[in-house]
Amino acid sequence: MRRDQLTEKILDIKRAKGWSWKHITDAIGGISPVLVVGALLGQQKLVKPLAKKAANLFGLSESEERLLNEVPYRGMPMPPTDPLIYRFYELVMVNGPAWKALIEEEFGDGIMSAIDFDMSIERQPHAKGDRVQISMSGKFLPYKYYGNEEGIQETGTKED
Amino acid sequence: MRRDQLTEKILDIKRAKGWSWKHITDAIGGISPVLVVGALLGQQKLVKPLAKKAANLFGLSESEERLLNEVPYRGMPMPPTDPLIYRFYELVMVNGPAWKALIEEEFGDGIMSAIDFDMSIERQPHAKGDRVQISMSGKFLPYKYYGNEEGIQETGTKED
Amino acid sequence: MRRDQLTEKILDIKRAKGWSWKHITDAIGGISPVLVVGALLGQQKLVKPLAKKAANLFGLSESEERLLNEVPYRGMPMPPTDPLIYRFYELVMVNGPAWKALIEEEFGDGIMSAIDFDMSIERQPHAKGDRVQISMSGKFLPYKYYGNEEGIQETGTKED
Amino acid sequence: MRRDQLTEKILDIKRAKGWSWKHITDAIGGISPVLVVGALLGQQKLVKPLAKKAANLFGLSESEERLLNEVPYRGMPMPPTDPLIYRFYELVMVNGPAWKALIEEEFGDGIMSAIDFDMSIERQPHAKGDRVQISMSGKFLPYKYYGNEEGIQETGTKED
Amino acid sequence: MRRDQLTEKILDIKRAKGWSWKHITDAIGGISPVLVVGALLGQQKLVKPLAKKAANLFGLSESEERLLNEVPYRGMPMPPTDPLIYRFYELVMVNGPAWKALIEEEFGDGIMSAIDFDMSIERQPHAKGDRVQISMSGKFLPYKYYGNEEGIQETGTKED
Amino acid sequence: MRRDQLTEKILDIKRAKGWSWKHITDAIGGISPVLVVGALLGQQKLVKPLAKKAANLFGLSESEERLLNEVPYRGMPMPPTDPLIYRFYELVMVNGPAWKALIEEEFGDGIMSAIDFDMSIERQPHAKGDRVQISMSGKFLPYKYYGNEEGIQETGTKED
Amino acid sequence: MRRDQLTEKILDIKRAKGWSWKHITDAIGGISPVLVVGALLGQQKLVKPLAKKAANLFGLSESEERLLNEVPYRGMPMPPTDPLIYRFYELVMVNGPAWKALIEEEFGDGIMSAIDFDMSIERQPHAKGDRVQISMSGKFLPYKYYGNEEGIQETGTKED
Amino acid sequence: MRRDQLTEKILDIKRAKGWSWKHITDAIGGISPVLVVGALLGQQKLVKPLAKKAANLFGLSESEERLLNEVPYRGMPMPPTDPLIYRFYELVMVNGPAWKALIEEEFGDGIMSAIDFDMSIERQPHAKGDRVQISMSGKFLPYKYYGNEEGIQETGTKED
Amino acid sequence: MRRDQLTEKILDIKRAKGWSWKHITDAIGGISPVLVVGALLGQQKLVKPLAKKAANLFGLSESEERLLNEVPYRGMPMPPTDPLIYRFYELVMVNGPAWKALIEEEFGDGIMSAIDFDMSIERQPHAKGDRVQISMSGKFLPYKYYGNEEGIQETGTKED
Amino acid sequence: MRRDQLTEKILDIKRAKGWSWKHITDAIGGISPVLVVGALLGQQKLVKPLAKKAANLFGLSESEERLLNEVPYRGMPMPPTDPLIYRFYELVMVNGPAWKALIEEEFGDGIMSAIDFDMSIERQPHAKGDRVQISMSGKFLPYKYYGNEEGIQETGTKED
Repeated sequence: MRRDQLTEKILDIKRAKGWSWKHITDAIGGISPVLVVGALLGQQKLVKPLAKKAANLFGLSESEERLLNEVPYRGMPMPPTDPLIYRFYELVMVNGPAWKALIEEEFGDGIMSAIDFDMSIERQPHAKGDRVQISMSGKFLPYKYYGNEEGIQETGTKED
Repeated sequence: MRRDQLTEKILDIKRAKGWSWKHITDAIGGISPVLVVGALLGQQKLVKPLAKKAANLFGLSESEERLLNEVPYRGMPMPPTDPLIYRFYELVMVNGPAWKALIEEEFGDGIMSAIDFDMSIERQPHAKGDRVQISMSGKFLPYKYYGNEEGIQETGTKED
Repeated sequence: MRRDQLTEKILDIKRAKGWSWKHITDAIGGISPVLVVGALLGQQKLVKPLAKKAANLFGLSESEERLLNEVPYRGMPMPPTDPLIYRFYELVMVNGPAWKALIEEEFGDGIMSAIDFDMSIERQPHAKGDRVQISMSGKFLPYKYYGNEEGIQETGTKED
Repeated sequence: MRRDQLTEKILDIKRAKGWSWKHITDAIGGISPVLVVGALLGQQKLVKPLAKKAANLFGLSESEERLLNEVPYRGMPMPPTDPLIYRFYELVMVNGPAWKALIEEEFGDGIMSAIDFDMSIERQPHAKGDRVQISMSGKFLPYKYYGNEEGIQETGTKED
Repeated sequence: MRRDQLTEKILDIKRAKGWSWKHITDAIGGISPVLVVGALLGQQKLVKPLAKKAANLFGLSESEERLLNEVPYRGMPMPPTDPLIYRFYELVMVNGPAWKALIEEEFGDGIMSAIDFDMSIERQPHAKGDRVQISMSGKFLPYKYYGNEEGIQETGTKED
Repeated sequence: MRRDQLTEKILDIKRAKGWSWKHITDAIGGISPVLVVGALLGQQKLVKPLAKKAANLFGLSESEERLLNEVPYRGMPMPPTDPLIYRFYELVMVNGPAWKALIEEEFGDGIMSAIDFDMSIERQPHAKGDRVQISMSGKFLPYKYYGNEEGIQETGTKED
Repeated sequence: MRRDQLTEKILDIKRAKGWSWKHITDAIGGISPVLVVGALLGQQKLVKPLAKKAANLFGLSESEERLLNEVPYRGMPMPPTDPLIYRFYELVMVNGPAWKALIEEEFGDGIMSAIDFDMSIERQPHAKGDRVQISMSGKFLPYKYYGNEEGIQETGTKED
Repeated sequence: MRRDQLTEKILDIKRAKGWSWKHITDAIGGISPVLVVGALLGQQKLVKPLAKKAANLFGLSESEERLLNEVPYRGMPMPPTDPLIYRFYELVMVNGPAWKALIEEEFGDGIMSAIDFDMSIERQPHAKGDRVQISMSGKFLPYKYYGNEEGIQETGTKED
Repeated sequence: MRRDQLTEKILDIKRAKGWSWKHITDAIGGISPVLVVGALLGQQKLVKPLAKKAANLFGLSESEERLLNEVPYRGMPMPPTDPLIYRFYELVMVNGPAWKALIEEEFGDGIMSAIDFDMSIERQPHAKGDRVQISMSGKFLPYKYYGNEEGIQETGTKED
Repeated sequence: MRRDQLTEKILDIKRAKGWSWKHITDAIGGISPVLVVGALLGQQKLVKPLAKKAANLFGLSESEERLLNEVPYRGMPMPPTDPLIYRFYELVMVNGPAWKALIEEEFGDGIMSAIDFDMSIERQPHAKGDRVQISMSGKFLPYKYYGNEEGIQETGTKED
């Protein structure tokens, strides 16, 4: 059984039961709904206690429960053709250079981790139309200048 | 003069002067530094009063000031090869399906606007290493079911 | 069941019954035929009352009716190889720069929404050969210059 | 001189003069502003009388005037990364299958011409935000079933 | 049933019967063999009387006959990897610029239609090896310079 | 000097002189205008006597004349974005499978050469609009079944 | 039945029987093993007497035998990801320009045919490690300078 | 000045001086030669004391020294066409799935950092031909299962 | 049976049995776990004695055992979308130019073989978080300057 | 100076002098003309004594001579659009699977080296048209089954 087949089966059960994602993530609990839904859609691993809860909820076999506990081959085809996902892609495409400039100036050479990372999505009521509020934070990981036995640093104090 | 030539000129001046982005965005002010830096890198338009401030700061000609006030052809080549920008791209690639599921369940059929949108980037101090904190919100735009003269709605109340 | 499998089933029934799209969209009604056909081809969501009508018409199961009510992963592979669809793609490719220039001059920095959008397709009789008449309108969405606490505006009046 | 060099020169002059596209298309006149702007951006040919007017307006050399009168190599790189142009691309990507189904049912096998084609863009005032109104019509061109010596037709009347 | 499944079925029958394409196109008749073979391979529509003949010949069901009468999603993956088809692709790739220059000089701004188009393929005996002789003609379609209320023309006579 | 620089120079001269392609190909003569124009656009080699004529006509240096006599790196970016050239590309994409089937049935396994090939383009007057008439023929080249020491043939006569 | 399904069946039988390619090509004989293996892998046509031998060897049905006798849609996805095939691809990528220069200088404007072509692969024993020895020859095909009524030649003798 | 222009200048000086990379990295010192060479080729940032040393060595201006101290837009076009670099690409392409399986089994869900990473390249003498010995280590970064308020763990102990 | 089907079967058995890769590679033994796991995932060949062990372990048929012994079509789609594998890809993309410069300076013109290659992956305990330690070595293969009858060498001694 | 600029300069001199490649490779000598021409076109390194000869022949500066002695970034854009080079690409695309099968059966798991490789191109006179005769040989490199401490071999003798 491939992971995409398990995803299709889970979506079939969700549809037949008429469950919402909220119902499902409340029942499984434990971690962020973004991660639980991601796992059920085949993009994340569910740790064992949660995989067991998901298996109970959906009536999965033991093998299917274990498949949920495996790390999938993550990622989807790009560029995204779906408008909702494309808007996020566009944000990266238009703002990428400015994010790079500002993060590097504030933190130095490195990246915001996409692994040691968390996020939440919330509805922000607004008179002119509600807004999707997304908060995320990722650990800043500085580039390691290896082979640096003399302790050379950016501030250049050692040179002075 | 093409916009990328103006960007190169601005970066040359910034480097020669030894200015930080913070110095520049403080001097220009008015709107978010993300947008000001984006404009100087060729991805956003600077409204007239800000284009004038930028021109004064960098000593630009009137034509260059006007070019900053034009809407550029936005976007950069994808996929991004730079690791810092790629991590954002990866977040979309891995989480896109879950974002779609959760936003559509909460808001209905539609998208989070990438145009009526705002964001901020901040440093979040953390004992195990500071984090990049990004907050963003975009207006939710529902798909318009046009030609709907009878006022058909998702809740189906009209049918009953 | 995947959405493309439901589309194939619906097309099989349409063919077996010998129904036209007009017959189908008249029977389902409610919203524009462009949207109803789009939904049956797997590109749009049918709201519940219409999904019920479609299910009755095609004799679909409750799960299939619910699948029609889900927001699909929209989009098709590009560039389109089919000549009819390609001509629209070509119009974007050839006229895109002029549309951008004229819309931005008239409306300012922003986009025409592809979400808050409606359209109609009609036959326009013509002595030298009938024409396809397409009318569409999309809400103009101005770029939000966020972080704009001082109310900086394009017209620059605040500066004076 | 390549056409893109002439476009850059024209945009430089437009910027230096502070002209709007409306000023330019009023001065050149004759045909739709969509076509005139398209020509100045390097996507259309200007017929001789209009090329002369454009040359007078911009102070172009005779060779540059003739270059405006040449048919350019049309088209731009796709997919468009600019949000304004991308929304049109997305409309084709999401609605292409429905357009194909409806046009073929109404007109038979063929295409809407992208050559014998006209369009207009207008502002449509609206209480909830003005809209971009686009009207376009293209001649329907039926596929020719060549080698049809017996006059075989879709209606099949000849067979009876 | 998808069109490619019908194509596979037709090729299976052709192979089992040992029929040549000539036998098949003679039996179906009516239009050019290029079109009939194209339709059986899933690239063209067969009008009703011919779809009936094809259905009789291949023993197809009524649904399959109707599928042959539908306009397929035309096109194949490009670039073609098969040498025979690639040679035609190469002819376009090498000669495209010259064709454009010569057709535009002779006919003006426009295209040769690929829709109002006919062609024939014949064997041309030759002492040094027979040749494939292809004749094709497509209607020239001039670009419409819409919004041309003053009757501006290329020859510029109106200006004088 | 690269070939594309020579092409740009030749087009500049053609424009400055106001020459048509017909004037140029009449002056150079010798071979098909398709080939001469192709060479001047950088896709074909001009043999020495013709390169000399072209050099005289355009006032080229000896090095430029020799460059015209070199075999260029043929081909242009694909898919073509220009509508005129795209229509030919589309003909290959839609008709490729049928051409392959019919040519292989008539000639056996092999290809129509794109090298030992000739073509002509002519205007075909027509009451409903003139047509572009293209005639081309290419030598059929049979696949060589090498290592065939026993003279195995398709007809299988040797087996009997 | 598609050709790739027949290939899979043939490989299943080969594996079940434990046959080597040498055993198979010896049994079928007639032409080069490169071609026979190519045909069984779906890239070449087997002429009738050999298709019959192959059918006898593998116990194929008459339809499968005929499928082997058909010209397949040749080619595989590129670039090749398999290291063995990639090395050949790399040879073309690195040496292509030099091959073009040397072949054109020796033979004139034209190509080495990939159709009227033969090759052999042999083991070349070598003290430092055996080598793969590949010999191939293809007919040189000169570009036809059509429309050459005056017999214009490269050597230019006619001009004198 | 763009970074690629600085790289070209540095390579010109290196060539004119006849310096080896070893000479250069010995003179600049401080960190691994892989990083120093990477910076001079435009892929890494040189911290200030090293940028100063590099500027002294190459006789660079202050602006050029500062450019070396900037974080470049990292990355190169892929797939690499150069054989030396391609072999590394191939190693990822062939071994990626096994590396993923083994690292995830040993470390759990996460990645090996490409940022907190070090490596060395050495010559390993060998009787049958010297070998390139590469040692690298990257910090393992576990996926953060955020929103995990209950301390759910993979081992499932909490559930018991 | 295709290789990917065998991989899916093996993964199903692994999951049902609850085996780790370590359990499997210990049971099969003989060569590096990287290679054994690679073979079970469809990227490597298992030599006969190991294929037999694997077949015994997984209860495979004789045909399946032989399939494990075949050289697969190696490689996976690129660029990798999975974050773990992407990080290796990124290392090549960012460091490729420096690796090329340093290896060529140390070894001369040539490559590090990806075939005569070995590697190991180990956990490296570290106070700030364990690290993935990868060691690899590949034989250096010098470009052969063939046709070198005079023994021309890089050192140029022969010239002196 | 970039390598492509040196190539352009060399081709300009070759054209101005009217030299053939034969003249040039005879003058430089030492190694195969394929390699010398490849180096002058920017795909190979010329060892020092040959770089000196080339520099003398073309009157190059010392820096240019050293650039010829550097290993270039090898490779060209693929797929090749030029017909001569494409035919080689096509040979790989059509014959790749058969070459893989036959080489692996004869030599075992491994590749034919594209580095320890030699080739020659010769004219083969032939009554029906001369042929391009290409001979090449590459060292076979067996995949190394590393971690093989027990001496496991394909023949399986150890197991017995």
